Amino acid sequence: MKTIRIGLLGLGNIGTGTYKTLEMNKNQIQSSTGVSIEITKILERDVDRKRDIKVSPEQFTQNPDDIFLDPSIDIVIELLGGIEPASSFMLKALQNKKHVVTANKAAVAANYDAFMEAAKENQVMFRYEASVGGGIPILNALTTALLANEYEEILGIVNGTTNYILTQMTENGLDYADVLKTAQEKGFAEADPTADVEGIDVANKLSILISLVFGVRVTPDEIPTEGITKISMNDINLAAQFGYKIKLLATAKKVNNLLECHVQPAFVPLNHPLASVSNEFNAIFVKGNAVDDLMFYGKGAGPLPTGSAVMGDVIEISRAIAKGAAFDHYPESKAVKTLKFVGEGQNKYYVNLTVKDVPGVLGSISTTFGAYGIGIDSVLQLSKDINSKREVPLVFILHEVTRSRLDEALAKISSCGYASEVKSIIRVM
Amino acid sequence: MKTIRIGLLGLGNIGTGTYKTLEMNKNQIQSSTGVSIEITKILERDVDRKRDIKVSPEQFTQNPDDIFLDPSIDIVIELLGGIEPASSFMLKALQNKKHVVTANKAAVAANYDAFMEAAKENQVMFRYEASVGGGIPILNALTTALLANEYEEILGIVNGTTNYILTQMTENGLDYADVLKTAQEKGFAEADPTADVEGIDVANKLSILISLVFGVRVTPDEIPTEGITKISMNDINLAAQFGYKIKLLATAKKVNNLLECHVQPAFVPLNHPLASVSNEFNAIFVKGNAVDDLMFYGKGAGPLPTGSAVMGDVIEISRAIAKGAAFDHYPESKAVKTLKFVGEGQNKYYVNLTVKDVPGVLGSISTTFGAYGIGIDSVLQLSKDINSKREVPLVFILHEVTRSRLDEALAKISSCGYASEVKSIIRVM
Repeated sequence: MKTIRIGLLGLGNIGTGTYKTLEMNKNQIQSSTGVSIEITKILERDVDRKRDIKVSPEQFTQNPDDIFLDPSIDIVIELLGGIEPASSFMLKALQNKKHVVTANKAAVAANYDAFMEAAKENQVMFRYEASVGGGIPILNALTTALLANEYEEILGIVNGTTNYILTQMTENGLDYADVLKTAQEKGFAEADPTADVEGIDVANKLSILISLVFGVRVTPDEIPTEGITKISMNDINLAAQFGYKIKLLATAKKVNNLLECHVQPAFVPLNHPLASVSNEFNAIFVKGNAVDDLMFYGKGAGPLPTGSAVMGDVIEISRAIAKGAAFDHYPESKAVKTLKFVGEGQNKYYVNLTVKDVPGVLGSISTTFGAYGIGIDSVLQLSKDINSKREVPLVFILHEVTRSRLDEALAKISSCGYASEVKSIIRVM
Repeated sequence: MKTIRIGLLGLGNIGTGTYKTLEMNKNQIQSSTGVSIEITKILERDVDRKRDIKVSPEQFTQNPDDIFLDPSIDIVIELLGGIEPASSFMLKALQNKKHVVTANKAAVAANYDAFMEAAKENQVMFRYEASVGGGIPILNALTTALLANEYEEILGIVNGTTNYILTQMTENGLDYADVLKTAQEKGFAEADPTADVEGIDVANKLSILISLVFGVRVTPDEIPTEGITKISMNDINLAAQFGYKIKLLATAKKVNNLLECHVQPAFVPLNHPLASVSNEFNAIFVKGNAVDDLMFYGKGAGPLPTGSAVMGDVIEISRAIAKGAAFDHYPESKAVKTLKFVGEGQNKYYVNLTVKDVPGVLGSISTTFGAYGIGIDSVLQLSKDINSKREVPLVFILHEVTRSRLDEALAKISSCGYASEVKSIIRVM
């Protein structure tokens, strides 16, 4: 039986989970693939850390070249995280004709073209299933079983931390700050939660999905991105009244030859399958011109689910090596990009205003929206005073409009003195 | 660019959908795979039928050997449906070194071993993604991206007709017969709905999933199978009261070295992701020892979704042909089957009885359940009389028990004269 040898960069939580996934299922993998997979070298400084796997001290090295320059190593798994030195290491591995598997969304999103170029130049395989949606095999499906589709739209809940926080706020009526604290205690949120709660992690994943699905590069910092830190219990309760749940969504959509995308909290209708994705679960929803609506649901993080995705990539490459076919077809880069990236595009919006409690205000505001060409889907005027001032909350669900047009209309409404505060603006799906 | 030539058996609805899927997405398929795929010959008697695709009369043949014996044809797509002559045709194609792709669940479930054997003997590829879950790429995921898992359980809603009927009954309070009639008018149900509503179609699909997931052959007629024809609005309303929806589920579960499986209507908890799968949608839920819970959701039928799955298989084989690697690793057949098939196993049950409205009945029935070792999870005694007789409905949710043990207890309860009727017994997830 052929043995495939692996060099592993990083034996932290995810590295340990990957090692364990292979250990647990070695027989199953061998019998169904006909190859034996061995992790022979590990780049990791922390040799003595307690891990519940069997690693011998001789497997460890502190010198990455021990892996890159070892001709017996077929595949390099990168699980260091962060853009550097992970990206340089992966490029070096590819240049040394190693196939590369990674779970590193930040590095893949930042250097996608460079990795593809290096893989093509060296005729090796580069895989990154675990970088989006953890254990969910979405990238594999998009690049194999679903290829007979032109993709029209992709929507995802791809960050478990923020979905956990929003679910707990919704189900238990708890405030953002309290839930974040509990999430940190339970290990669902990092000590510094910025990358998660500000949507940066989601933007990395959306950038990768867009590259795969639409063949267009949009870097994470080009994606209009908003996190969940401004979402209040008031917004969540109002969403429920209108028949929605608030979710942090990654969205990319083709509208004729334009590509719209954004990372934003959004009102998701209760009967949409994404609305029932709770807590730390992730889901990716994709629409193809033949297959129509599809959704993939599962654990978006965690050592073993991520290990499952990493080892799935390793198995694909190992089988290809065993068949003497471990290379990919790389599409010619299109001379003319057919899709033009245009930012977040037109959307429906929920707008929560604080307005003066005087006759004619609703009419004036509605008229102003109309003057800016913005239709009103529904409106809710609540009667109770806020802080005993003569002000009332006025909530609109507005029809499709660009965000910049909406902002202009709201500036006009504020300047006329009708509204003293724009409390929230949230996209409606 | 290499051209892959296809012989298509059958140009009915699914055949036309498959042809159309290829036509619509030809450029996309070529650019991402580097091969050109052409359907060159079609076995179909009905040449003149109006179809919204461009087929020339020369593509048609009435003689299957024109396809099987044509050395220029690489792949045969079988879309005739039914066990015969489809199975004989596919075997003949495999024996003539053609790769075979099919959407035919009845044929695959009936002759799985023969197809595998023929594919192995002739070193060709046999694929059947579209036979389970229509457009949902579940078989591909189970045999590639998820291979680093030992599978523990698989659950599926894999019949759109019955899911549509149950959804309409649940959401609109309509009776089974009325919904079936509407479904037939809308084309969601066949004129003869037996295979769907009696669970036969689902048993075929479960048999295929079990072969793939657990490596054990359980033929469709070995699977304990019950359809939805006995489900009443009363059951659906009571399910809702207890916090469940009724779904027709295919289930297979490993319990130590035993395999339990069945096709039955079941109470699905409202917070389970399968509960929100509505109307004609399908979903397959799988639990792996690394990836944990995963669910795949999409259209389980229809010409284009099925065409997407068929063409996905064709693309996989075409890429492999282009790489000179169009063969599979076939696992050695295990000398000792490690999993023993034991029927439906232990489950929780909902039992709806009509009992005499006299003091002591609840106590006596509860005591009898206890004597048979059956625990009670919840109980609901309704007060209103039925047909003005002195009888009342008494509903139990019972803890895990084998169905045979439950039947013994119910026979005892009936023989003692407490219960005049066992109205329903439905599994609880």
